[in-house]
Amino acid sequence: MRIGILTSGGDCPGLNAVIRGAVLKSSRFPGNEFVGFKYGWRGVVNADLMHLDRQTVRGLSKQGGTILGSSRTNPFEGPCGGPENISRVLKENRIDAILAVGGEGTLTAARRLAEAGLPVVGVPKTIDNDLAATDYSFGFNTAVEIATEAVDRIRTTAESHQRCIVVEVMGRNAGWIALHAGMAAGAHAILIPEQPRSIAQICEWVNSVRHRGRAPVIVVAEGFVLEGMTEAHSHKGLDAFERPRLGGIADILAPMIEAHTGIESRATTLGFAQRGGVPSAYDRVLATRLGMAAVDLVVQEQWGSMVALRGTKIVSVSIEEATHKPKLVPVQRYEEAAFLFG
Amino acid sequence: MRIGILTSGGDCPGLNAVIRGAVLKSSRFPGNEFVGFKYGWRGVVNADLMHLDRQTVRGLSKQGGTILGSSRTNPFEGPCGGPENISRVLKENRIDAILAVGGEGTLTAARRLAEAGLPVVGVPKTIDNDLAATDYSFGFNTAVEIATEAVDRIRTTAESHQRCIVVEVMGRNAGWIALHAGMAAGAHAILIPEQPRSIAQICEWVNSVRHRGRAPVIVVAEGFVLEGMTEAHSHKGLDAFERPRLGGIADILAPMIEAHTGIESRATTLGFAQRGGVPSAYDRVLATRLGMAAVDLVVQEQWGSMVALRGTKIVSVSIEEATHKPKLVPVQRYEEAAFLFG
Amino acid sequence: MRIGILTSGGDCPGLNAVIRGAVLKSSRFPGNEFVGFKYGWRGVVNADLMHLDRQTVRGLSKQGGTILGSSRTNPFEGPCGGPENISRVLKENRIDAILAVGGEGTLTAARRLAEAGLPVVGVPKTIDNDLAATDYSFGFNTAVEIATEAVDRIRTTAESHQRCIVVEVMGRNAGWIALHAGMAAGAHAILIPEQPRSIAQICEWVNSVRHRGRAPVIVVAEGFVLEGMTEAHSHKGLDAFERPRLGGIADILAPMIEAHTGIESRATTLGFAQRGGVPSAYDRVLATRLGMAAVDLVVQEQWGSMVALRGTKIVSVSIEEATHKPKLVPVQRYEEAAFLFG
Amino acid sequence: MRIGILTSGGDCPGLNAVIRGAVLKSSRFPGNEFVGFKYGWRGVVNADLMHLDRQTVRGLSKQGGTILGSSRTNPFEGPCGGPENISRVLKENRIDAILAVGGEGTLTAARRLAEAGLPVVGVPKTIDNDLAATDYSFGFNTAVEIATEAVDRIRTTAESHQRCIVVEVMGRNAGWIALHAGMAAGAHAILIPEQPRSIAQICEWVNSVRHRGRAPVIVVAEGFVLEGMTEAHSHKGLDAFERPRLGGIADILAPMIEAHTGIESRATTLGFAQRGGVPSAYDRVLATRLGMAAVDLVVQEQWGSMVALRGTKIVSVSIEEATHKPKLVPVQRYEEAAFLFG
Repeated sequence: MRIGILTSGGDCPGLNAVIRGAVLKSSRFPGNEFVGFKYGWRGVVNADLMHLDRQTVRGLSKQGGTILGSSRTNPFEGPCGGPENISRVLKENRIDAILAVGGEGTLTAARRLAEAGLPVVGVPKTIDNDLAATDYSFGFNTAVEIATEAVDRIRTTAESHQRCIVVEVMGRNAGWIALHAGMAAGAHAILIPEQPRSIAQICEWVNSVRHRGRAPVIVVAEGFVLEGMTEAHSHKGLDAFERPRLGGIADILAPMIEAHTGIESRATTLGFAQRGGVPSAYDRVLATRLGMAAVDLVVQEQWGSMVALRGTKIVSVSIEEATHKPKLVPVQRYEEAAFLFG
Repeated sequence: MRIGILTSGGDCPGLNAVIRGAVLKSSRFPGNEFVGFKYGWRGVVNADLMHLDRQTVRGLSKQGGTILGSSRTNPFEGPCGGPENISRVLKENRIDAILAVGGEGTLTAARRLAEAGLPVVGVPKTIDNDLAATDYSFGFNTAVEIATEAVDRIRTTAESHQRCIVVEVMGRNAGWIALHAGMAAGAHAILIPEQPRSIAQICEWVNSVRHRGRAPVIVVAEGFVLEGMTEAHSHKGLDAFERPRLGGIADILAPMIEAHTGIESRATTLGFAQRGGVPSAYDRVLATRLGMAAVDLVVQEQWGSMVALRGTKIVSVSIEEATHKPKLVPVQRYEEAAFLFG
Repeated sequence: MRIGILTSGGDCPGLNAVIRGAVLKSSRFPGNEFVGFKYGWRGVVNADLMHLDRQTVRGLSKQGGTILGSSRTNPFEGPCGGPENISRVLKENRIDAILAVGGEGTLTAARRLAEAGLPVVGVPKTIDNDLAATDYSFGFNTAVEIATEAVDRIRTTAESHQRCIVVEVMGRNAGWIALHAGMAAGAHAILIPEQPRSIAQICEWVNSVRHRGRAPVIVVAEGFVLEGMTEAHSHKGLDAFERPRLGGIADILAPMIEAHTGIESRATTLGFAQRGGVPSAYDRVLATRLGMAAVDLVVQEQWGSMVALRGTKIVSVSIEEATHKPKLVPVQRYEEAAFLFG
Repeated sequence: MRIGILTSGGDCPGLNAVIRGAVLKSSRFPGNEFVGFKYGWRGVVNADLMHLDRQTVRGLSKQGGTILGSSRTNPFEGPCGGPENISRVLKENRIDAILAVGGEGTLTAARRLAEAGLPVVGVPKTIDNDLAATDYSFGFNTAVEIATEAVDRIRTTAESHQRCIVVEVMGRNAGWIALHAGMAAGAHAILIPEQPRSIAQICEWVNSVRHRGRAPVIVVAEGFVLEGMTEAHSHKGLDAFERPRLGGIADILAPMIEAHTGIESRATTLGFAQRGGVPSAYDRVLATRLGMAAVDLVVQEQWGSMVALRGTKIVSVSIEEATHKPKLVPVQRYEEAAFLFG
């Protein structure tokens, strides 16, 4: 069997560990062969391939990024040629299955290709942890650890200057990173897309913290919207990569807080360092296991399925289940965290 | 309501986060009060208390160790006086409930006290992750991250000198730390208590790695036994604290491997640094949530119960369920990891 | 003898270690006493004091920020009252000496106070490492390590997407952080205030890197100016705290590079996380030694002097020497780094 | 010009950065070529070479270990053939100069080869920082940071259990790592080879710490000897690699302290993780600069010289100067640290 793997969408710690897990697992089945499509679906539609074997994936579990490269190409858009073209590429290159590692867009494409009769399985990838059907996705743990360490550092500066600092973390539609990093770092408020709040409420928290003699630290997800703030102002819906450099939500909130409370306030945005570099051990294990299990899906010809984490187990689910709606922070989880606020 | 909390047994990153979570959650219920028993059950039997409030637990989520101190005192042993004495202490100090944070021994004591009619709930604590009924216990994630980083470092030395290095990690009865750190760091063999292996098998792995031009790195749990090795030689069953300084299993394996393969081999034992210090964000979140949920158990008077992680949820389980047998590494998980060996 | 210590200006890892070093050293001389002025010179002019002893400074060497708080108050400005007022405060509080920890402004004030006959010594503090007379200042090493780790992480994302990423680090007038972090992380170009470069030169480097198949990573100090760019556009001269949120130099460079080279380019600014949090071991040792040595200056009544690092030794220098002009990156050091560019 | 580089002796973070610095610097001189000798002097005497160019050293500055491998082969011992053989190898492989990266043994060999007329220059390498003529050697900073982080972690466990913990770090003849890590982590005693102390003195420190309500943490260099303890018992003089597994000095001290003070005491040895893995930014910059400067020595034909750090400058010194006696911790530095003890 000859399997082709691709990685698509934004960078995410653990992509290389998925590739390594899949290749090493596959290498145990005699006759199996592995190739990589370069730069996501672009490599599929252009038949841009590289050979993958035990030697190629050596040491990859701890390496950030993806040796295959990534892109945001969608096989159903533009001149990609859709299923027919991909079917032809597979045939011409004697590839028996595609293992697609990507987010909602990639998985939806994978599902549609499978429905069109192509041999495709998926591995869910979202640094924001917002895909349903999996308890956690790889990369998320690393992002939370990095964000937490940054907030830990920033807090001492807030205290030294008796300032309020607003820290913006990733999370366009779902606030998981803010929720976890905020709880871990003991933030005095956590603001997430799922829970619009008014500036009055935020300032009440800030004042209460200051009243206890402390310097308020707020963790805000990039997709948070103030109650009453239109999406146009919040930049929600814009890709982090495409977002104009007007500054993010933290840059909007800090001066508002300062104006309302009289407390000096500053903003800082954590940026790309959250999504690159060496994955945490947690993400390496999860990504490796997902990569290995995806090979099982291929062997079992479970086209249109993907691997997922449930508790401590790797299971198989239909891609449909994972993509029909995003996994948002439930209100109970937000309220649990909010017990620690203010 | 006046709640007393204690932390018992070996150090574990996240203990302070449990204390903080419980105190902050409780402080939201008017009329609640919190005290800490110092040095585990010893503080209970001796009525050695400290007041705990919002101010006392400030900044604790990221602090290693336990501000309450710990000990290995068992309330059912020696001159502790058992349930009667504890009942008297609670009455004299107007304490309405005990929140016991500890491992198998502490939880078993908690269950027996609850059976004797005392108001006790539990929070599971085991750095080895070997308690049933909870997917993960806090501290384990931190230990795995530390061990993985150490193995990452040690690997470059193995490669530079073309040596085999055997790294001993914690895990007396269960190999979870070795399994996860070994997978994360790409170890060439993982040896755990649940899976005795012969020196011949180990050397086969070592030789196969060397044959591919690499320097073998082996991760071994302290409780691993060679097939045919008696427990007396393996030190299994001795407490890590009490274990005589004869050297651990890594010190036994390295010279055996060198003798059998002719490959220079060295041993290193990671030691106490695995179980202290700043908890990972993952453990801070888990420990905080467990501490908060334990207060709910108290409010609901679920004596004899403990909190646990299932998937992404904190649930309540009977302590019985968690303590009737240890959670060992299942054979499937070991075989999954073994796909990557050799 | 009764010594008062103050910390002034921007946050810097190691401030607490200086305080601890000074207090512990002093506590060895019988009869010595220590107090802290709160929030920099503001605490001096307002006689806002806190007692400092062995117990107060426990565990401080690894704690970020400053337990005394900081401010940007200048004793010679506004209603501070200058030397006369300070002299009165010292007399009224029986304080025999001031140990001032701060940057150029604070040290200049300390020198002028000493010239006016007041008993003041200094400890140099600049995260940018731009004070003359000392090889390194504490905090700088930590900032470089944090920036380097961030660039390491960001690089994998640049490679995965074949993008150019411009990373902005601290350094308003001197490019030391950019120079060191850029060299350590293997940046393809380093841009510093001391060395204006044209956009044409920068794009030549970027194209050359791309030509070798790599994703260009550029480290730029916040104070860098393009050749021909007026200061008004570069924001140079504005305080990092006061700088309007127009975006920094990285936000200016990235779109220019993309426009000139056609290579997708992104900007990221590391922000406050560079200047807070746990100090590196290097900075803890340096800060501790400086704090201890400053007490020697007090005992020797070397008013108007400050401590400094020369090679591996802590020496005493006149504040004059350290403040008459900033320590910029010499051209040879920039050329040395530039050998590795492009 | 064709230059050959070798790395010799124990692993040390920064070796790869030296190689990269030298190769990149050299690649700027047209006509220069670089080769690596594999496994130290063994590769020289056996003419075991690998080609090195810009591509080979890509990304090496942050990679631990050495891509050339290392060994303890001495060209003047055994069947190596001495200068004549090496001279022949150089001629046969058209190599114009040797750049030797190593410790005292390697540098002494380099000096003797230069005296015999061979074109050899040196780069000093010692994780223990015990070579004279250089303020710091690369790798030392990384080792101190790792040791400090470990002691930070271990301290919380000591406090939780009210135990004394003795942490053994590297340092056979010189106590630099113990001195720096001990100061950084706030150890209650630092024990180094240069300063024998009696068990009575150590226990006085331990008791004084305990008396203040704290858990004593002692940092001891592996080469420390108790006053009156013969070298045979202290294992001093044995190579860390060859040292029998009787346990180190920490394993000797802990039970003695417990016996004398009645305070529960434990030992832990940090081991190989101190000398491998990703170098700190400090070490990457230092190693890169040393590698680049060594190429200058070659170009200037300064045979028998080596590069060294003085203050912030890289200078050239005779190898003689660096090797005629080790750089030990001066008594003033020890006394400075001892101000913070007990």
